[in-house]
Amino acid sequence: MSKIPTSIDIEIRVRYPEVDQMGVLHHSRYWVYFEMGRTELLRAQGMVYADLEKADVLFVVANCSAKYKHPAHYDDLLTLHTEITKHGACRIDHAYELKRKSDGLLLATAQTTIASVNKEGRIIPIPDSIGFVE
Amino acid sequence: MSKIPTSIDIEIRVRYPEVDQMGVLHHSRYWVYFEMGRTELLRAQGMVYADLEKADVLFVVANCSAKYKHPAHYDDLLTLHTEITKHGACRIDHAYELKRKSDGLLLATAQTTIASVNKEGRIIPIPDSIGFVE
Amino acid sequence: MSKIPTSIDIEIRVRYPEVDQMGVLHHSRYWVYFEMGRTELLRAQGMVYADLEKADVLFVVANCSAKYKHPAHYDDLLTLHTEITKHGACRIDHAYELKRKSDGLLLATAQTTIASVNKEGRIIPIPDSIGFVE
Amino acid sequence: MSKIPTSIDIEIRVRYPEVDQMGVLHHSRYWVYFEMGRTELLRAQGMVYADLEKADVLFVVANCSAKYKHPAHYDDLLTLHTEITKHGACRIDHAYELKRKSDGLLLATAQTTIASVNKEGRIIPIPDSIGFVE
Repeated sequence: MSKIPTSIDIEIRVRYPEVDQMGVLHHSRYWVYFEMGRTELLRAQGMVYADLEKADVLFVVANCSAKYKHPAHYDDLLTLHTEITKHGACRIDHAYELKRKSDGLLLATAQTTIASVNKEGRIIPIPDSIGFVE
Repeated sequence: MSKIPTSIDIEIRVRYPEVDQMGVLHHSRYWVYFEMGRTELLRAQGMVYADLEKADVLFVVANCSAKYKHPAHYDDLLTLHTEITKHGACRIDHAYELKRKSDGLLLATAQTTIASVNKEGRIIPIPDSIGFVE
Repeated sequence: MSKIPTSIDIEIRVRYPEVDQMGVLHHSRYWVYFEMGRTELLRAQGMVYADLEKADVLFVVANCSAKYKHPAHYDDLLTLHTEITKHGACRIDHAYELKRKSDGLLLATAQTTIASVNKEGRIIPIPDSIGFVE
Repeated sequence: MSKIPTSIDIEIRVRYPEVDQMGVLHHSRYWVYFEMGRTELLRAQGMVYADLEKADVLFVVANCSAKYKHPAHYDDLLTLHTEITKHGACRIDHAYELKRKSDGLLLATAQTTIASVNKEGRIIPIPDSIGFVE
């Protein structure tokens, strides 16, 4: 029996306009990368987030925190590890580790809590079909 | 009788993450500023673009061109002149001039053609209520 | 004797491409707004962050956290309260409250810790001239 | 003898915050994709743009134009064709075609002219080492 993955590693190359005049990846862009991690984890689980939205299941970030340890630079190839750390009826917690691929240097760690809502913004249970709810 | 304005000047301050590691406003961000010019011109005409969208009238950019003459830097205060240069049943052309406020240096000029579409992406006439169609 | 301000309120209007297909301000953009709050607080204190960078004093975000309570929408006018909550030799903590201006609804709260570094990324003391270090 | 490539195809997946509340890739983001095309074309030619910048050779966009034919949506996999159409001592022209990968639908075409400048913004010859100048 195949096991549903609860973590995934993806590679991301830093784009030019993601870097600010200090020459480092702007702290706001990390959240875009973390979202890409969640999307690809869902895909690895057999789901497409775009389809969830069409079925009126939206995942919104309820809270988040991050520690920035070392900067990333333009054109750096990064490895993002995204992991589900907790899930409930209506929420999922993820943890993230972003590393520089060339030497494995840990650049940042972060956590988010995602809530499942409908288009009206009301909290709704994560559909059973998503499967990874215990 | 009050005349409907066909141009507007707005001020924009360059934000930190809009500037790239060359220390200049990234060329892609200008289009965000030009869109702000269109939004404020509409508002000066008594319309709110957000309301148009609710009435299923979407303005999409069909084509555009720009000349970049001098760079803008972080924290620069800019003046954007937005002007309607042509309008038809289903499209509006705008021209833009972006200047540095302190000395009036012309940074960029641009043009866009906006098409009026519904949520299905079909070209639709610009509603009469918009008024600025001749 | 005039007192150096340790907090500031600024207004921000939500831009079109800052909103995602859910129709809400994307969670990553809040950090851009919070940075604008820090910039304007510095300006109210008589400093220009761009000048600090020229003097080789860079402020980098070392850690951050946020709670998202209610969504913001396109064209909403928001009020951002930015406040220094703690400062040391090499770091400053800020707290943020983002509200919808029309009715004062609290949309999000957040905290950041900023570290003072030079271009090589080494932690350096915040210059005395900045003044707000006790 | 191996020939230096003058065009390249890359794949890009549309990210969530690149899409606006119309549900389509915002017109400003296309320029970020086109820049990625130029970066990867340089890499295929054996150069890394980040290294050029370290050698005080900056490529800035002098002018651009685009036609938007069909929208791209969140999570769409796109194919970007980037091609050098003209090059001189100090400038390079590129043409772009962005297609939806699944069915080859042409979404947009565009052109840019890139100028070679130094950190002071002065036009400089493209270094011979770049090689693709005839």
